[in-house]
Amino acid sequence: MIETPYLLFLGDAPDMLAAKVAIGIRDWRPENALGQIRLPGCGADLGLPDMTLAEARAAGAKTLVIGVANRGGVISPEWKKVLIEALEMDYDLASGLHNLLRDEGDLVAAAQTHGGTLHDVRVPTVGYPIANGVKRTGKRCLAVGTDCSVGKMYTAMAMEAEMVARGMKATFRATGQTGILITGHGVPLDAVIADFMAGSVEYLSPDNDPDHWDMIEGQGSLFHVSYSGVTLALIHGGQPDALILCHEPTRPHMRGLPGYTLPSLETLRDTALPLARVSNPACVVAGVSVNTQHMDEAAARAYLEKVEAEMGLPATDPYRFGPGTLVDALAAI
Amino acid sequence: MIETPYLLFLGDAPDMLAAKVAIGIRDWRPENALGQIRLPGCGADLGLPDMTLAEARAAGAKTLVIGVANRGGVISPEWKKVLIEALEMDYDLASGLHNLLRDEGDLVAAAQTHGGTLHDVRVPTVGYPIANGVKRTGKRCLAVGTDCSVGKMYTAMAMEAEMVARGMKATFRATGQTGILITGHGVPLDAVIADFMAGSVEYLSPDNDPDHWDMIEGQGSLFHVSYSGVTLALIHGGQPDALILCHEPTRPHMRGLPGYTLPSLETLRDTALPLARVSNPACVVAGVSVNTQHMDEAAARAYLEKVEAEMGLPATDPYRFGPGTLVDALAAI
Repeated sequence: MIETPYLLFLGDAPDMLAAKVAIGIRDWRPENALGQIRLPGCGADLGLPDMTLAEARAAGAKTLVIGVANRGGVISPEWKKVLIEALEMDYDLASGLHNLLRDEGDLVAAAQTHGGTLHDVRVPTVGYPIANGVKRTGKRCLAVGTDCSVGKMYTAMAMEAEMVARGMKATFRATGQTGILITGHGVPLDAVIADFMAGSVEYLSPDNDPDHWDMIEGQGSLFHVSYSGVTLALIHGGQPDALILCHEPTRPHMRGLPGYTLPSLETLRDTALPLARVSNPACVVAGVSVNTQHMDEAAARAYLEKVEAEMGLPATDPYRFGPGTLVDALAAI
Repeated sequence: MIETPYLLFLGDAPDMLAAKVAIGIRDWRPENALGQIRLPGCGADLGLPDMTLAEARAAGAKTLVIGVANRGGVISPEWKKVLIEALEMDYDLASGLHNLLRDEGDLVAAAQTHGGTLHDVRVPTVGYPIANGVKRTGKRCLAVGTDCSVGKMYTAMAMEAEMVARGMKATFRATGQTGILITGHGVPLDAVIADFMAGSVEYLSPDNDPDHWDMIEGQGSLFHVSYSGVTLALIHGGQPDALILCHEPTRPHMRGLPGYTLPSLETLRDTALPLARVSNPACVVAGVSVNTQHMDEAAARAYLEKVEAEMGLPATDPYRFGPGTLVDALAAI
């Protein structure tokens, strides 16, 4: 559990793309994002107040979150200066970087001296159990994609926000680095040992109130040969009551796999639903989430209408047009 | 790569069940099993010559393989005495125990002093790549099961032996501890980090001659919620040209999951084949392997006839009746 609220470290990010983690925190947990701190030359701006470490600390910030990817896997001396100063001011640090905070001797020393915690969210810190498949109370929704990176996390985040706004009980359950940094906790599923993947998802989404929804962050795709095993562990460990099918219609091939085409939404439905019913026979496909960012509004709306007609399911771009129809579908389950 | 031939350490195994690893080596790589070494009270007997460490070393043994499960996860003082003596006589040690040889200070010290190697086959020693899905040359066969522990490894072993006897090119590719100890190399797939599972299978089964078959050891089951992700990674990383469906007809429920019934062979076929065709569109189901150990011969033969008629595929118990019809099916691909 990472302590909130955060000060978001943008470092010398060349552009907004590099600040994906910080943007996610700003968009989905604005109450956790007190401000931003930037180095000279930073090309990213979240539109949050620029604060010094001292200002943010005085305003209550508990953790300095590295909200940006670093270059070449090296934590530069300029970054180090800020990070060590933060530890000296009793901040914790949190990072999803590939190179770990705990592998940097000067950061470890400063953390020990000042009693701070280094959160490397790529590394599991829990000894997860083997999945036991026992049915859990409460309801669960999982987004599954025709490919990786089609908007599964944003779909779950947008639906959770709408559900909370409507007074429904809902909790986003993070399974990736960005989601963990946004919400402060979760399971870094892609770093879990094979035998414990499904068990880690059971751990992440325990028994809950009968009318509570866990919105479990999806990973990979059943059709992406590099990561499909992670996806199936999520489906079987997650025991979803509802699946949301996610798709990005303009992609020429599976992400990183030039020889592989994306499956149709029908194929995704017909593959994922029977597998989901192994662990939860009551599972249904509740709707379709389309990432329309590369389509103009007319094309996006026409595409969504076509999908609704063909699939007989609500279809929306939850980030662009709101997740209302998907939440309606869950509310009816 | 573990050096052969082996001396098989049976320790104080209470019975044959505890000596599963040693039995596998004797059955499938008899040329690697020079002899057995037992402690007082050992209830297992492989029918191999009982040898002292010195006798086996003189006969050419390179590695002392712990072919037995230990009690309570503790390597006892009686075992230690033999293991250290073996290192002093220039043996390597190999083990699939949960508690690792490398965590025992006295074994590490003896190995360093005498230049021996400690092989803990549960632990990956390679930095596996992310799977790239690129089609590899050569042919591959993978056994997939309605459940865990239905005979997938024995099916692949028996088929490999028959193929080699017929002069076909075939290599068993181990993905579990027992298979690795039997053959001396492989990937401990259940211990691989989630993101690298499929890549480790690509690594295990590289390009080969067009008429060469890799007989890849199956793991888990698409229908076993604890381990299904491992199975799907095997299917997608393995790029099988042929699947063998494996089943144990008398099992009341999925292994370790009292609430879960086994799928039918038809359901297994209809689930596994479309998933396999994602990474290899030419994949076919070549036959059915039935573990009939709990059926008398008449019942076993009747069951196999029924499966052949219903599935339109060759069906056999390869351990009991030979794998000939399954190998015929591969030879025709």
